[in-house]
Amino acid sequence: MSLSMYEASVPVFQRALGNLDALLRQGEEHAAAAGLDLSELAAASLAPDMLPLTGQIQRASDSAKFAAAHLTGTSGPSFPDTETSFEELHQRIAATLAYLASVDPADLEGSETRAIVQKSQRGERHFVGSSYLLTFALPNFFFHVTTAYGILRHKGVPVGKADYLGAF
Amino acid sequence: MSLSMYEASVPVFQRALGNLDALLRQGEEHAAAAGLDLSELAAASLAPDMLPLTGQIQRASDSAKFAAAHLTGTSGPSFPDTETSFEELHQRIAATLAYLASVDPADLEGSETRAIVQKSQRGERHFVGSSYLLTFALPNFFFHVTTAYGILRHKGVPVGKADYLGAF
Repeated sequence: MSLSMYEASVPVFQRALGNLDALLRQGEEHAAAAGLDLSELAAASLAPDMLPLTGQIQRASDSAKFAAAHLTGTSGPSFPDTETSFEELHQRIAATLAYLASVDPADLEGSETRAIVQKSQRGERHFVGSSYLLTFALPNFFFHVTTAYGILRHKGVPVGKADYLGAF
Repeated sequence: MSLSMYEASVPVFQRALGNLDALLRQGEEHAAAAGLDLSELAAASLAPDMLPLTGQIQRASDSAKFAAAHLTGTSGPSFPDTETSFEELHQRIAATLAYLASVDPADLEGSETRAIVQKSQRGERHFVGSSYLLTFALPNFFFHVTTAYGILRHKGVPVGKADYLGAF
């Protein structure tokens, strides 16, 4: 064995979601110090037709949740995407982390060949577990975490790449 | 075996770098149509103290190159980070892809336990191959690809998530 499917998915999501939670805290601290309205920060985006910070957190959460659910052939918890405040975003991340912590590594054994159908607005995409994880789930997950980071940076929050990567 | 170290690294970088090259082409087409100066687009960033588009491409290239080099215990090609034009950025991506194509999958066998020392401005970080790939190389690589995408979106280039993810 080189890498298990579990090792390349759940702990990767857990680590980045923990870092993302800390980035949000730094956003709150900056907003308080700079007199910036937190609701403005939560609604900020990089382009008028891109998801705001709230949406990036929701999609990061969903990317991780759906990956764990698809790879184990189960359904994850339902998250209705109603978060607007930072406190609610922290709760969303905590709920996602609680779900990921409940995933049994044994349930991902053999998932590299599991047939996965991923539904999107563009129709159905058919994968096996390994291609799903490597060509869709991981790139999509990091897209949303990084874009959330980019929004914070764009709004002046003094975070750095080391905060995104987390402690080593 | 679930995932090989090769499968979880080199083809992932190749795919995303190909998508990134296509995103740059779309940036050039948009700039031509909108009368936007290409050098302004190449120098654009999401925050005054973040790397511009050129720097994000250089770091995406380096992230992929260093990952392949560290995991195979070799040295990759030297890229002096002199790119300023879109044409030079395409050449940088092409050179990175040429290097990645030269990597023999067999040379990554067993790399999950290879000791890797990664030097940064903050000092040395010590990894084994699997933790290096999953906690540093992949998150760092997608950070730079996504930030390049975010800069293009922020400057009005009409690309979408499907362009970032690439064809399935």
